[in-house]
Amino acid sequence: MQQSQKSLMLRQSMKPYVKHIRSQLDNVVDFWLKYSHDTVDGGFFTCLGRDGSVYDKLKYVWLQGRQVWMYCRLYRTMDRFHKPEILEAAKAGGEFLRKFARVSRASGEWKCAFCLTSDGKAVKVQRTLFSECFYIMAMDELSRVTGDKDMQLEAEQMMEQLIHWVRVDSSGLGRPQLPGDVPTNSMAVPMMLLCLVQQLTEGQGQDVVQKYKELEQWCVQQILHHVQRAGTAILENVSVEGTELPGCSGRLQNPGHALEAGWFLLQYSAERGDEKIQETAISKFMELPYQCGWDKKHGGLFYFLDVDGHCPTQLEWSMKLWWPHCEALIAFLMAYSQTKKPELLERFFEVYDYTFTHFPDAQSGEWFGYLTQEGKVALDFIGGPFKGKIIRCAFN
Amino acid sequence: MQQSQKSLMLRQSMKPYVKHIRSQLDNVVDFWLKYSHDTVDGGFFTCLGRDGSVYDKLKYVWLQGRQVWMYCRLYRTMDRFHKPEILEAAKAGGEFLRKFARVSRASGEWKCAFCLTSDGKAVKVQRTLFSECFYIMAMDELSRVTGDKDMQLEAEQMMEQLIHWVRVDSSGLGRPQLPGDVPTNSMAVPMMLLCLVQQLTEGQGQDVVQKYKELEQWCVQQILHHVQRAGTAILENVSVEGTELPGCSGRLQNPGHALEAGWFLLQYSAERGDEKIQETAISKFMELPYQCGWDKKHGGLFYFLDVDGHCPTQLEWSMKLWWPHCEALIAFLMAYSQTKKPELLERFFEVYDYTFTHFPDAQSGEWFGYLTQEGKVALDFIGGPFKGKIIRCAFN
Repeated sequence: MQQSQKSLMLRQSMKPYVKHIRSQLDNVVDFWLKYSHDTVDGGFFTCLGRDGSVYDKLKYVWLQGRQVWMYCRLYRTMDRFHKPEILEAAKAGGEFLRKFARVSRASGEWKCAFCLTSDGKAVKVQRTLFSECFYIMAMDELSRVTGDKDMQLEAEQMMEQLIHWVRVDSSGLGRPQLPGDVPTNSMAVPMMLLCLVQQLTEGQGQDVVQKYKELEQWCVQQILHHVQRAGTAILENVSVEGTELPGCSGRLQNPGHALEAGWFLLQYSAERGDEKIQETAISKFMELPYQCGWDKKHGGLFYFLDVDGHCPTQLEWSMKLWWPHCEALIAFLMAYSQTKKPELLERFFEVYDYTFTHFPDAQSGEWFGYLTQEGKVALDFIGGPFKGKIIRCAFN
Repeated sequence: MQQSQKSLMLRQSMKPYVKHIRSQLDNVVDFWLKYSHDTVDGGFFTCLGRDGSVYDKLKYVWLQGRQVWMYCRLYRTMDRFHKPEILEAAKAGGEFLRKFARVSRASGEWKCAFCLTSDGKAVKVQRTLFSECFYIMAMDELSRVTGDKDMQLEAEQMMEQLIHWVRVDSSGLGRPQLPGDVPTNSMAVPMMLLCLVQQLTEGQGQDVVQKYKELEQWCVQQILHHVQRAGTAILENVSVEGTELPGCSGRLQNPGHALEAGWFLLQYSAERGDEKIQETAISKFMELPYQCGWDKKHGGLFYFLDVDGHCPTQLEWSMKLWWPHCEALIAFLMAYSQTKKPELLERFFEVYDYTFTHFPDAQSGEWFGYLTQEGKVALDFIGGPFKGKIIRCAFN
C-alpha cells in the first residue's frame, strides 16, 4: 500500500474522533457559558460542581485570563462560536481582569494577584509570573477581536515587565535573594514565554516578529537545556548553565509539561521549516516523556516522576490529571499532522482511548480533572482553583 | 462487674499494645540514629529511603528542630534513651540549627529559613511561623539537658517575636497586606502557640507560668472558636471574631489537626482540673473529627474534608497520612487515661488497628507516611520534606 493511500485511510479513520472531540468542545463551552458568569460583579466563577453550582466564589486571575482568551479564540477562529454572547462574555471578563487583576495598577505596578474576592479585591499574590502570563494572553487575544489598541499596548507592556523579571532582575516578584537558592531554569518559564511570543506575533507584521525574535530563540534554547542525561531524559528543573541540579528538584520529571513544551517547539519549527527542532521536539519532548510517563499497569500519564526511580515527594505524583492528557493529545496529533508518521497517530489513539474513557463526566458534559493512579475519580468537581476549561487552542 | 475491675482488665489488655509501641519507638530511634546524621556538615538529613539512603540533602529547619527536640526529650525522660550518643546527636543538631536556621541572625533578625542546603545556606523562607516554632521547641528542650541558659533565653526571645507576629503585627513575616485577605484564625497558629507555652512552662517556676498565662488562655479561646455550626463541627479556619468564613477555606476540616488540638486542650485541662475544657476537648475535638473524619469504607482518617460534603480542592484530601493517626492515638489514649471511659479506649483500639497494620514498614523498621484512600502505600520513602520521625511526646 502506498504512503498516500495509508494517509488517506488514517484520515478517514480520524473522522469519528474529530466528531467526538467537537461534541465535547460544544459541551464544555455550553457548561461555562451557562454556569460560570458572575452577572453581579463581573468576571467568572471557576469553582463549579458537576451541577454547575458555585462552591467557592474566589476568582483565580490565571483562570479568568484563560477563559477570556478561550472565548476570544473560539469567536475569532471557529464559525460556530462566532456569536455575540461569546464576544460579550469575553469583553465582560476582560473588563473585570483589567479593573482588578493588577494589585497596584494605580501606582503603575504590573504584579497581578493570584486570586481575588468575587468583587475584585486581591486575596493572594504569588511570587511567580504565571498570573501575568495569562493576563497577557487574555489582553492580546481580546484586543484582536475588539480592535482595542490600548489593550494590546498593555499586553506588550506587561510582556516587557515579564522579560525584565525573567532575564534582568527578579526582585520585583517579591522573592528574597537567598544564598542557597541556586538560580534555576524551570521548564514552565521559557515554555510560557515562548507561548506568549507565539501569541503576540501570530499574524502580525515583521516588526512585531523581529521585536521578539531574540527572545523566542532564547526560550527555545532554554527549553532545549532540559534535555539531559545524554539525551535520554527531560528534566523539569536545570541550572541556568543547562546542567543537572542536585536532589529531588534536579531529578524531577513532569511528563505533561515536557509534552506541552514539545508542541510549542513543533509550532516554532513549523513556522521556520526547522527540521532539526521538529525532530528534537518529537524524539525528546514527546517520545521520552511518553515512554517514562505512561503508566504501563493502569494507563494514563503520571503527574510527576523521579528520573532515578525514587518516589517523588509530591503527594499527588501518581495521580492522573486531565491536562497532561490534553497536552499529549495535542502533541501527538500535531506531530502526526506535520510528519504523517503512523506511529505518532497510534500514540494519539492510545492517549485518546484513556482520556475519553476516564475524564468526561456524563452528568455535566464537562470533564473531571483528577483521577487516582488506578483511574478512579479522586476529586469530583468540574472547576477548581487550578482547573478551568479543558480546551487548548490546538483543539480548534 | 465493678468499674474498677473493668479498668484493671482494660489495663491488662493494654500490655501487648504498650509493648508493641515501645518496640516501634526503638526501631524508629535506631533508624534515625543510624542514617540521618550528617557527620560532615552537621545537622540531619531527613529525606531518607527505606534502606536509609539519602535521596535529597536539603535540610528542613522544622524537621531539624523536631529531631533535636525528640532526642532531648527521650534522653531526659526515658531511662533507656539516656545515652551519650543521643545527647551528642541532639547537641550537634542544635548547633547546626543555631548557626544556620535564622536567615539574618547577624543583623538580629528572628525569621528562620524553611530549608537549607546541606552546608546551611538558606534555600527558601516561608511566610509563616512554623520553622520558628520548632526552633523554639528545640532550643528550650536542649537547654533543659545541657543547662545552657543562653540557649533558653534565645528560645524565650524568639517566642516574644512570634507573639508579636501573631498578636500585634504580622508584616515581619513578609506577606503583603491585601484588601481581600481577611484576617483568619487558622487552627495551626493558636495550637502551636499553646504547645509552645506548654513546652516553655513545663516544670518551671510560677514566674514563667505567670508570664505566659494570658497567652495560654488566649490560645485556648482561639482554639475553642473553631467549634462551629452550633457545636457540631470543628472548622480549620474561622474569622478572628470566631465566626465561619465563606467558601472552601471556611468549610475546610482537618480531622488530624482537630484531634491534635484536642489533646493539647486535654493537657491544659489536666493542669488546672478544668472539667469543662476536658469535656469540650473530648466531645468536640475528638469525637466530632473521628465521626466525620474516619473513612467508614476503607478505614483510616481522611486528610481534609468539607463540612458541607463538597469535595475538598486539595488533591491529597482522601489520602491517609501517618500523623493524623498518631494524633488520634495520643488523643484517645490521653482521654481514656484521664476519664477511664471504656469507649475512649475502644476508639484508641480502632485507630491502633488501622495504624499498626498499615503504616509500619517491615524493611526499615520505620513507617511509611502516605497511603492512598484504599490504604496502599502511595509514597514509599521514610523521611521527606514534611515527614521526619513518627513519634510524638505523648508516646513516651
